[in-house]
Order: sequence, then structure tokens, then C-alpha cells
Amino acid sequence: MMRTPVTEMFGIELPVFAFSHCRDVVVEASRAGGMGVLGAAWMTPDELEVALKWIDEKIGGRPYGVDLVFPGTFAADADEDDPQRLVPQGHRDFIGKVIDRAQIPPLPAEDAAQFNRENAAKMRMTPLESERALEIALRHPVKFVVGAMGVPPKHVIDRVHARGIKVGGLIGAVKHAVRQRDAGVDVLIAQGSEAGGHVGRISSMVLWPQVVDAVAPLPVLAAGGIGRGRQFAAAMALGVAGVWCGSIWLGTRESELNPEMKQRMFGAASEDAVVSEALTGKPCRILKSAYTEAWDQPGAPKPLTFPLQSILVGEPLRRAERAHRLDYWTYAVGQIVGDMKSETSVRQIFADLLTEYVAAVDHVTELTAEAE
Amino acid sequence: MMRTPVTEMFGIELPVFAFSHCRDVVVEASRAGGMGVLGAAWMTPDELEVALKWIDEKIGGRPYGVDLVFPGTFAADADEDDPQRLVPQGHRDFIGKVIDRAQIPPLPAEDAAQFNRENAAKMRMTPLESERALEIALRHPVKFVVGAMGVPPKHVIDRVHARGIKVGGLIGAVKHAVRQRDAGVDVLIAQGSEAGGHVGRISSMVLWPQVVDAVAPLPVLAAGGIGRGRQFAAAMALGVAGVWCGSIWLGTRESELNPEMKQRMFGAASEDAVVSEALTGKPCRILKSAYTEAWDQPGAPKPLTFPLQSILVGEPLRRAERAHRLDYWTYAVGQIVGDMKSETSVRQIFADLLTEYVAAVDHVTELTAEAE
Repeated sequence: MMRTPVTEMFGIELPVFAFSHCRDVVVEASRAGGMGVLGAAWMTPDELEVALKWIDEKIGGRPYGVDLVFPGTFAADADEDDPQRLVPQGHRDFIGKVIDRAQIPPLPAEDAAQFNRENAAKMRMTPLESERALEIALRHPVKFVVGAMGVPPKHVIDRVHARGIKVGGLIGAVKHAVRQRDAGVDVLIAQGSEAGGHVGRISSMVLWPQVVDAVAPLPVLAAGGIGRGRQFAAAMALGVAGVWCGSIWLGTRESELNPEMKQRMFGAASEDAVVSEALTGKPCRILKSAYTEAWDQPGAPKPLTFPLQSILVGEPLRRAERAHRLDYWTYAVGQIVGDMKSETSVRQIFADLLTEYVAAVDHVTELTAEAE
Repeated sequence: MMRTPVTEMFGIELPVFAFSHCRDVVVEASRAGGMGVLGAAWMTPDELEVALKWIDEKIGGRPYGVDLVFPGTFAADADEDDPQRLVPQGHRDFIGKVIDRAQIPPLPAEDAAQFNRENAAKMRMTPLESERALEIALRHPVKFVVGAMGVPPKHVIDRVHARGIKVGGLIGAVKHAVRQRDAGVDVLIAQGSEAGGHVGRISSMVLWPQVVDAVAPLPVLAAGGIGRGRQFAAAMALGVAGVWCGSIWLGTRESELNPEMKQRMFGAASEDAVVSEALTGKPCRILKSAYTEAWDQPGAPKPLTFPLQSILVGEPLRRAERAHRLDYWTYAVGQIVGDMKSETSVRQIFADLLTEYVAAVDHVTELTAEAE
């Protein structure tokens, strides 16, 4: 039991937020006294409804959140379903050849067509579609709606607030934090450059206190580089109201991540979590692989803009995964991957976080008794 | 007064190490209860002797250190003094045109020749020259000899140890930490990617605990992103024995940094401290300027290898500085530059570090009392 502005805000025991695309992680995190936040940005409306219903059945009334994307503008033609027409032929040829050369078999033609339709529909998110996802979320007892990218539109924030629900926003720079605060966001998640997924350039150590000071008294959650209790303690010392972890849940038994990919992560060093535009078209920290390296070779085309790159690479990556060629797959993960060594559980991570947190704080308390 | 393995090792009051090229910063840091470490890597033997003599006169018998480079191999011809012959014509033309286009006047021919001779001599460091610097340092009551780059050779470590002096080494990755530990280094300085100067890719938040665990019980100093007491407290919570700061001293009145450059730093955001190979040929975090951006333009040549790039760019940068065109100059600085807002003093920084450190620890101690 710790008391901070966010434990008060949400009625939770520990200021630990677990971002995950896996419903079991969300449930277990909330049951462990923290708060699970479902990464729903790329779910179809049907998938989201199923996941939230499942969560409601298992979570025992504990609070949880949903992470969505509220796009401002959108580059590609919203009426176009065929990814083959959305992306340039040269890019398709390049990545096709990379995967062919690795002797990874194509998908059966029918699977490929269906996969591409679904992938394009997910990735080609429009404001209308994200608001449809929000409406589904609001039919469930969600307590926290987080915008994964950019400032949510005013009418979205108003709609969520009208239901008594808090709004969060992920940011990687002070100026974005101020913009979100001014738009009415209740909790900022300040994400350092060591985080997995879309990242800014400022490290957690420098970014967190800057954001805390810039938006005070608004509560700030610390994200990026947190996998153990010492980092949890360091974050609290830097002045945040709680921590937001994503990568560490990938290695739990509750995680639905491809088990072969879990093994690759357990063998990876922090240096293997590289920033690349190869997955989405935006700088995104992902696990290095033959796929990411192909885009760094001389002569490789520049990745397309977001979300066209995601539409382009969906099928080749699906081929690699299906053929168990995880050396050609990738997945978003932060530098903390170097500390993930074997499968664990959400509950065990919470226990370890808290034990090491207390030891770390006892350690600095002793040092400081002599300093005063 | 704090007690950690490094305060015990060096007989200092606070585990705060101040890396600086400015002798006044070294003296003031040691007098404030920490330990100044003179960055002497690019000093001539005469300059080093003068600086150490001055330090000895002012420091009142307090311990201090010296930071040197012990190069393994060296790429360029050690007998060649003329930088015009060391670097390719195409590179010289490129950077010459950039500076000409900015209408920055050339140096007087005689000044240019002398500057280039001196610059090449400094940058073109050979093992023999660095050991000559070491011999000068060992004539003074230095307590800490730090290798700024790579593992010092065994005979260097033995020579320093034979005098009862401790050896430190800067590293940015766990595998380098282990290599230095195995070579007999006494204190490791784990430098996160947010630091100024030559950097690795792992952030402080992730790197420090990894290094602490990998080399325990060897003491580790935390470097990269530390400019205030909350960061000092976070570092200690992450398990290090002390902190190593470099950038924050640049903005003090004791710093000999070009005053116009100080002003540029006070106006800079953390995003302006960019990793570039434009200054030395190795990834080095420096202040963004028209000079660094010129190397990022399409068509710009790839920077030369270290130390040829330093030899190449010495004269154009000297021209920019001399013409008060600091928009075309640059200097190594970490992301903490975003927190440096006006001139202060070494003593004030120590006072602020300690005050905020104590407040941060009190804060987490209170939180944890409820957690236990």
C-alpha cells in the first residue's frame, strides 16, 4: 500500500500501471494491486468488445484502463482497402525480396488477401474508427482512457470526462506534456527514449523531472527503462506519482506474445532494442532482427510514413512468424529487454518490484541519515 | 557527509565527481567535499603540468583526479604533422565551403598553420604521448587516474597501482565494464547514452543497475543525465556508489568555456544535445549547430574516423569561434543541458544537489513507510 496522487485518483494500492495488449496481463496487474491498461489501438471493434467483456468477468471489479490512438490527420486514402494500392511498388518489391531470399514461404493466396484486408483496416485508423473504439470502451467500467499518440480532440476528452473517467496521454518531450495538460488531460505518462514502441529522444533520467516540474501539480507516470524495484524507487525519487511498464510483461506466462519471440527476448541484450522506422514509419524501439537490419542496408528504401509502413510490412512479417522464422520478425520492446531472462508471471513481477523497491529506499534512507 | 565505497576509498565527504577541463572547477569541486577530475586528454604535456601545478597550489591538499586517454591502436601516420596531408581533400573542401558560405573569415595564414600543427599534435594521440601525460600526472598528488576511452594497458594500470593510486574507467555497456574489471580497474564510471561526449546506446536508467550487478562488489559511479539532487538520489537508489557529472559545470563561473557558448547552452533544450560523429568521428553527444547540421545534409561526406575527424574540423571550428559565430561552433554536452538556465557556481551546484537529494530521499522514505 502506497499513497500517491494516482493511487488516490484510481483507488489502487500500488502506483504501478501495466500496459499490455494481453487481457490476462491487464487482469493480473489490477488484481495484484496496480492497474492494467489494455493496449487496444490496433484491435478491431469486435476484438476490443471481446477483450473488455473477458476482462470484466475476471477482474473482480478492480479498476483498469484502455489505451487508444486518437489520430489528428491521416495520410492515406481512407476508402482504399487494398494495401497493394496504398504502398509503392518499389517498397513492396524490396521487402518481398528480403523475405524471399530468406526462403520464407508465401502465405496461401487466400490467407494473404484476408490478412492484408484486416491489417489495412486495423492500421489505417481514422478519427471515426478510433471514436468507435472509444464508444465500445465506454460501455465497460473503464476508469482510465489513455491516448497513445498525440493530443486527443477536445470532444473526446469532454466525452470521457462526462463519464467521470480520467484521461491520460503518452508524451516524450516537455512541450508535448504542456500541450496535453492545456488540452485537459489528467495524467501524463512521460516516456523516456529507452522505452519500447514509439519514442522520443530524451532519456527517462532527464525527461521525468522536466515533465514533473513543467505540469505540476498534474500527476506524471514514469515510463521507459523500468523493470525492477530499483528503477521504481529511482522514478519515485525523481518526483513522479507512479510508474508505467510495458516491456516486462511480454516475458510473463500471461503474455500472448509468440513463445519463440519470448525466447528471443530472453536472449537479447539492451543493445538489441533498436530505434527503427522499419515497423511503423515512425521512430519505434523494437527488437533487432534480420528484418530491421535489411532496412539499414545501403540501397534500402526509406521507410514509408506512418501508417503506410505498417500496412506494407504486415504480410512479410506475418510470413516470417508463420514460418517460425523469428529471426525475420520483430516486436516493440524497450532496453529493459536486457534484464528479461526467463518466463515469469505478472504476480511475481509485482512482488519483485515491491521487494526491491523497499530495499532500494532503505538503502538511500540509511545513506541520507548520515548526510543530514 | 555520506559514506559509500568511494567516499571511503578517496576520503571525501560526498560521492560527487566533477569531470571538467577547467582547473578551477576541479579545485572548487574538491573543496566542496566532492572530487574534481581534470579532463586532460587533449592537453599538451606543458599545459597539463601548468594545470596540475595550479591545482596543487589552490586545492588545499584535497584529493583530485586526472582523466586521460590510453589509446590501443592508432590509425593515422604518427610522424605526419601536417593535417592537410592526413585528411582527404574532399572532406576539407566540404567543410571549408560550409564555413565560407557562412561568411566566416579565414584565420590569418600564420595562425592557421600554427593552430593546425598544435591541434594535430593534440588529437593525434599515441600510446607514447599518453604515457608521457601519465608520467607528468604521477609527479603530482593525483589520487585517481581515469581512462576516458577503452581499457588502459596492463603496464599502465600496474604503474598507477604501484603508486597507491586508484584507476577508473568510463564505459557505456556491460561487456566493457566486465573487461575493465578483469583488467584491474578499481572504479567503473557507467555512462548512459544521455551523457555529453562519447556515448554508448544504453540509457542511464537501464545501464547503471546492469553494470552494478555485473561487477559487484566493484564500486560504480553513475554518469549521464545527472544535474540535480533528484537525479543524484535516483542514482543512489539504483545502487551506485556515487555520481559523476560533467555537463553541469560548463555553466558555472569557474568554467572557462567560451561565454557566448555558455549563453547558447542556457538557451538550449535537451533535444539540442544530439549524437553526432561530426566532431570526433565517433558518436559524441554535442550541442546542435549549423555545423553539426551541415554533416547531416544529403550529399555531406561520411565523417572520417577518430581522430582524423577532429584533425579535419579543428580549423573550421576555430574560425567560427574566433569570428563569434557560435552558431557554427559546437561543444560536448549531455541532455541535462535543458536544465541549465543561467550562470551559477560549483559551490552552488553542490549545495543544490545536496538539498534536493535530501528532499527526494525524504519523499520516498515517507512513501515507503506506508508501503511496508
